[in-house]
Amino acid sequence: MMLVNGQPGDSVLALDRGLSYGDGLFETIRFESDKAPLWTRHMQRLAIGCERLRMPAPDAALLWREACQATGELRQCVVRITLTRGCGERGYALPAVTETTRIVAAFPMPQVPDASYIHGVRLHLCRTALADQPLLAGIKHLNRLEQVLARAEWNDPAIAEGLVCDTHGNVISATAANLFAVVDGVLVTPSVARCGVAGVARAAMLDAFEHCQVRDLPLEACRRASELFLSSSIRGILPVQAVGDTVYAPGPAVRAMQRHWQALMERA
Amino acid sequence: MMLVNGQPGDSVLALDRGLSYGDGLFETIRFESDKAPLWTRHMQRLAIGCERLRMPAPDAALLWREACQATGELRQCVVRITLTRGCGERGYALPAVTETTRIVAAFPMPQVPDASYIHGVRLHLCRTALADQPLLAGIKHLNRLEQVLARAEWNDPAIAEGLVCDTHGNVISATAANLFAVVDGVLVTPSVARCGVAGVARAAMLDAFEHCQVRDLPLEACRRASELFLSSSIRGILPVQAVGDTVYAPGPAVRAMQRHWQALMERA
Repeated sequence: MMLVNGQPGDSVLALDRGLSYGDGLFETIRFESDKAPLWTRHMQRLAIGCERLRMPAPDAALLWREACQATGELRQCVVRITLTRGCGERGYALPAVTETTRIVAAFPMPQVPDASYIHGVRLHLCRTALADQPLLAGIKHLNRLEQVLARAEWNDPAIAEGLVCDTHGNVISATAANLFAVVDGVLVTPSVARCGVAGVARAAMLDAFEHCQVRDLPLEACRRASELFLSSSIRGILPVQAVGDTVYAPGPAVRAMQRHWQALMERA
Repeated sequence: MMLVNGQPGDSVLALDRGLSYGDGLFETIRFESDKAPLWTRHMQRLAIGCERLRMPAPDAALLWREACQATGELRQCVVRITLTRGCGERGYALPAVTETTRIVAAFPMPQVPDASYIHGVRLHLCRTALADQPLLAGIKHLNRLEQVLARAEWNDPAIAEGLVCDTHGNVISATAANLFAVVDGVLVTPSVARCGVAGVARAAMLDAFEHCQVRDLPLEACRRASELFLSSSIRGILPVQAVGDTVYAPGPAVRAMQRHWQALMERA
């Protein structure tokens, strides 16, 4: 079900700045049996986003109650929380008083075949490149046309994701997941300081795998990686089997991360 | 008044991709006595935007009828047309079938004092820089967080606009208007091929002032311009009096453009 500002409903005012300008943030959160193992990290990222966009921080306890209400009878689901700057006068200027809009909605969990976790998924190499915008990088804001354009590049259901680079030829992420690689024996994940989203699954993995290097990952280095895999707060850790014609095999790094993910999910 | 998909209303579905991802376009159009002198140009830009975003093109005749209906009794007003990709499954992938959402709403015309047209307006020099994204440059899409952040940099009502640069130190535009300058005796307007919006007032002026050069305008060149002025489909042609401490005086170029604008508005 869906709650809009705490009330059951499915609509928002057409003049909401979330729609007029993409002026807001969102989180998509994995719920399992009324538990959301990465909840605290989602709330931390949302708070950082609010600070960056100069929006009032939400009440995390209120959001938790609303998220639990939205899940209803669903044992496993995805809760999307959208927080916008609400309505205001026409024009870009911030409203004199901000009354944010919050939308809390539950969706069925996407079904990922077991084979994807065992053998990996295939990726399309996207032509759409992410622009450098350090003011918006890392946070999960509502300006997602780059991701929409990248995702529109393929239609083959056998391809699970797209590999997206920045305009300098560095690999950044998938369209809706972060990326890890093992290059010359070193575990790395691309920096999201200039573009891309700082995923909460990525953050949880970085805390656990302290030797992982956060740095630029040129496409050429990505091509010769011995392992390549994705992290997503919804889908967990997925090996990459191929990007176009470049093939990869799952190795010890992705298996270790999958075990850690499983432990995180069970511990909660 | 406001029409949503042709019906009087003020709300849209909370799952509209316009809100979820800023997945759509908009136009703000000056109406005067049931006439919109730049209507055709607005429709052209909207069609280009739809092509760029792979959205079905709207029916311009239908939009015209809805815009006239929305203006109601208002003699002078601004009509905002918002066109989104409508609803779909959760996720960035384009819906299998797109049913766009259109919102047509009339707003009072912003009041610009006569003195602003005569003596000019003051601008703040924004620190927020626009990212290079040629895939989205020029079109008026709903991903406007850069403009929101730039506009949030000042609060002084004596400052009418902000001057916005790209990340290379070239001046691009104001937050909600295009920009013209006279540099070394040459009329120039910044290129919007990598960032910025290709304004319809700018397009009308470029058609009439064929000697105007479209090129990069480094901030340093802008500082020593003999004239600086703004173009907006709503507010028309506005001289710039000052950007921070750098002062400008209106000259023959802005006066010629103001006369042309006036003629365009009266001819319609």
